[in-house]
Amino acid sequence: MRQSRMFIPTMRETPQDAESLSHRLMLKAGMIKQMASGIYTYLPITKLVLNNIEQIVREEMNAVGGVEIHMPVLHPKELWQESGRWDAYGRELMRIQDRHDRDFALGPTHEEMITALLRDELKSYKKLPLTLFQIQTKFRDELRPRFGLLRGREFIMKDAYSFHSNEASLDETYKDMYNAYSNIFSRVELNYRAVEADSGAIGGSHTHEFMALADIGEDTVVYTDGSNYAANIEKAACPVPEPVETNSSKEIEKVETPGVATCAVLAEHLDITVEETTKTMIMRIGNDYAMILLRGDHELNDIKVKSYFKTDDVDFATDEEIRNLLNATPGSLGPVHTELPVYLDHQVRNMQDYPTGANESGYHFVNVNHERDYEVVDYDDFRFITEGEMAQDDSGPVKFMKGIEVGQVFKLGTKYSESMNLNVLDENGRSVPVLMGCYGVGVSRTLSAIIESHNDDRGIIWPKAVTPFDIHIITANPKDDEGVKIAEDLYESLGKRYRVLYDDRKERAGVKFADSDLIGLPYRVVIGRGAKEGKVEVKARRSEESMDLSIDDVLQYLEVNY
Amino acid sequence: MRQSRMFIPTMRETPQDAESLSHRLMLKAGMIKQMASGIYTYLPITKLVLNNIEQIVREEMNAVGGVEIHMPVLHPKELWQESGRWDAYGRELMRIQDRHDRDFALGPTHEEMITALLRDELKSYKKLPLTLFQIQTKFRDELRPRFGLLRGREFIMKDAYSFHSNEASLDETYKDMYNAYSNIFSRVELNYRAVEADSGAIGGSHTHEFMALADIGEDTVVYTDGSNYAANIEKAACPVPEPVETNSSKEIEKVETPGVATCAVLAEHLDITVEETTKTMIMRIGNDYAMILLRGDHELNDIKVKSYFKTDDVDFATDEEIRNLLNATPGSLGPVHTELPVYLDHQVRNMQDYPTGANESGYHFVNVNHERDYEVVDYDDFRFITEGEMAQDDSGPVKFMKGIEVGQVFKLGTKYSESMNLNVLDENGRSVPVLMGCYGVGVSRTLSAIIESHNDDRGIIWPKAVTPFDIHIITANPKDDEGVKIAEDLYESLGKRYRVLYDDRKERAGVKFADSDLIGLPYRVVIGRGAKEGKVEVKARRSEESMDLSIDDVLQYLEVNY
Repeated sequence: MRQSRMFIPTMRETPQDAESLSHRLMLKAGMIKQMASGIYTYLPITKLVLNNIEQIVREEMNAVGGVEIHMPVLHPKELWQESGRWDAYGRELMRIQDRHDRDFALGPTHEEMITALLRDELKSYKKLPLTLFQIQTKFRDELRPRFGLLRGREFIMKDAYSFHSNEASLDETYKDMYNAYSNIFSRVELNYRAVEADSGAIGGSHTHEFMALADIGEDTVVYTDGSNYAANIEKAACPVPEPVETNSSKEIEKVETPGVATCAVLAEHLDITVEETTKTMIMRIGNDYAMILLRGDHELNDIKVKSYFKTDDVDFATDEEIRNLLNATPGSLGPVHTELPVYLDHQVRNMQDYPTGANESGYHFVNVNHERDYEVVDYDDFRFITEGEMAQDDSGPVKFMKGIEVGQVFKLGTKYSESMNLNVLDENGRSVPVLMGCYGVGVSRTLSAIIESHNDDRGIIWPKAVTPFDIHIITANPKDDEGVKIAEDLYESLGKRYRVLYDDRKERAGVKFADSDLIGLPYRVVIGRGAKEGKVEVKARRSEESMDLSIDDVLQYLEVNY
Repeated sequence: MRQSRMFIPTMRETPQDAESLSHRLMLKAGMIKQMASGIYTYLPITKLVLNNIEQIVREEMNAVGGVEIHMPVLHPKELWQESGRWDAYGRELMRIQDRHDRDFALGPTHEEMITALLRDELKSYKKLPLTLFQIQTKFRDELRPRFGLLRGREFIMKDAYSFHSNEASLDETYKDMYNAYSNIFSRVELNYRAVEADSGAIGGSHTHEFMALADIGEDTVVYTDGSNYAANIEKAACPVPEPVETNSSKEIEKVETPGVATCAVLAEHLDITVEETTKTMIMRIGNDYAMILLRGDHELNDIKVKSYFKTDDVDFATDEEIRNLLNATPGSLGPVHTELPVYLDHQVRNMQDYPTGANESGYHFVNVNHERDYEVVDYDDFRFITEGEMAQDDSGPVKFMKGIEVGQVFKLGTKYSESMNLNVLDENGRSVPVLMGCYGVGVSRTLSAIIESHNDDRGIIWPKAVTPFDIHIITANPKDDEGVKIAEDLYESLGKRYRVLYDDRKERAGVKFADSDLIGLPYRVVIGRGAKEGKVEVKARRSEESMDLSIDDVLQYLEVNY
């Protein structure tokens, strides 16, 4: 491809409003153009890379028996009402009316559509298992679109759905998909981890997220060096200490704590450590409320709370709700003398003689002991793990990394087939709900994640598997007819073997080199001053290794080294 | 691909509600599933064929220097206001608000988006010409979606846009695109014609439509056998008779015509032919009105009227408007004694002593002569040509065929660049609006058009260039282990050379053969009773030629014959 006929509007200045490295590099390298918040045009370089990623995804899906289809963007409201998601999805679901005032959603995922598609066509278990996938534009009206393609409102996903008449078959496809995803992210050269993730309060029994490790990542991956254990911090189980017998002889006592509203200040006031304090959280669980006590230095994990109470309808109680419940304000809350059901994080179980709020501003109780001073409904894991605690598999203390979620595999079970009546007759002629799995890859997000981890201070460094072109031919001096002739010949001869971008523009050499670094193709062939002696420079983008070669040797050199 | 793992829900019954052959065949062959009116899921067979068509389109676009991009579905309202199309497009434009109440259109075409994209990046004529294209889902909220994928509300288009600093460059790309389109529709084996089409009242100067000839087509193609002249009937120029001197001696006379409201009845009443009558049409042109006279047997062509008056805001005057203007009703209208400007179709110019309405119910004038009895503003071509009239290029009498519009090439000129300020500096440093062309292929519609012309009473007959698979291997008796073994071996050996669909389902042979005819792959290999003697049947779908071959000869036979 001649660069003069390509459209690669590179930038000299670093765009100030781009918040992530990949976003900045994609803007600078002329890969994307924002048309509205979180909505981008993919320019030619991006489209080429996306095509490559999509092809890899397609191959890996086909390899595990996935069959490609294409479902609509417009989803009838009625289907989303059947699944309950029309109301549950909230404002991230974009909604539109047609000329006859019929409601549609712009699909963010396609569970309803594919379930509706199959329930009319599937009658017998004999047609199962079946795996269908598509690569398609999706919509999610993010409150805060950011980081370029990492969190956009219109983006490309591969979504696959599998259908099974028994658990063993679902397990097998889940495993196949897990392996296919591992292949995909290995092939595009992402440094990734497959992590245990939360499967949500209602749907599904089992899920893994594929996390590309990158500082910009919005997820925290919990892992150890001692094993391949890895989990999303939302899911990572905290160690459960062995319960010890507590037997306090100290009397509970109400003390003045004027102006104390945090555990840190309380600890200072009482001359104890923060670890010796507690914090009391009031949670709204549907129409009810519950009190959860944590150690003062721990953070409540609302995902675990949702999972424990088996509902997504969980939130921190508002100040007003707390006032109505306890006639108290946050910072002075506690479990003594309340009507609310009290739950303790495992870590509080072995504590004794600890302080709690007194539900009265400026006062705390000290020497509080559960079971003695207040009743406990249950003990469980309600918090985020912290770095250095023991991993769930006892493989050592956990470490944290940031990750970008680029894929997820998910056992849906019968969540959609039960609500939407997707049944088949089993071997015994009984009608049974179909088991489902769903499997997503963020295609445009994967592209950003690749750039996040393949770059240097001069630009992008494409992995070969996804690079838009293999070789960048550059005429250092486009007015040098002899050099241009050599470049044209090389463009033709190398073009038979490789995908070549030929910078034939009438620009200064400095501009061309800077653009070439930005665009980041694996090899660059420069026709410069040495051309008179029949020499050109071949340079590898990643290693920066550079060679002066005679023109006739270029092809052979690339064949050996590329 | 094993058919048991594919999803091809064929039907035994012919669907009653499908109005076109391709729609019926796609439903019967398990290719599509309607999710809402005009909105379809493309099932695996369809997706494979679409991928093939898209690849052909991509290759031909690349061959003429087209560079692929991908623009968003969501278009900010502000851009459509700049072009004026937010208001002009009407209810076919689907509109949506995001969570911040900002308005977007779901793109039916991308002129605004690409013009906005380029005006920020293009500064100089040196970057031109440039041709960008995309293959993407489009939206048009049709009042009456019908004929399956031929007129849907969500469909796949290839749209390309070219940019130029001078007419010669636009002309060259237009010609390249015209040729690329000819290649595309030849490669997919459509019987098509490139026809002159109307370029609309405002935008553009020149356009051709590519029409796939098919009875279901909604457009009428005017052509001759004597040349390659072809035009959309909307555009096809009518012959212009040489003006002859008229010199009537008859007096205009008002006659009673009780109950006469059509030209046919009038002709009978006056004992003349319909060709000797005239009809008077009142047209609203913006805020003005005009009277247009045609010969009684001709039909007004509103596209030509729009083109003549250079505005899209043209309509037949309503009965109420006519009453207000003339105090008369349709059926008795005429040009004598009115204030309205009168235009004559060329064909009326040589008429004399003809009848017209008297603008009074139950009365007509006879022996009317223009110029003598009323003034004429202008003579022009305001009607549809009829079969048998001489073609514009004098190549013979025109014939009519029905066509499906599968592509269009269009010189936009400066329509969008002027309204949206896409300018570049020319050779002399002056800022000039960029010349644009746009070029569309209805990808999903092309698929339907292919089926419309490649089928028989048993199903589809795929052209090789787009067929989902090359060969259909069928085990006539899936309980015959020996036959299954042969089939599996052939699946493996033929699979190395061809794309094979292997019907491994546990179905009766009759079901498999019927499905195979419906799906319509070029060759079928049946492992049946002859398998014991090492024989299989190879049958061509189109010619129905069938051969019993020894298993070892199958590959060689296909290599020669496929």
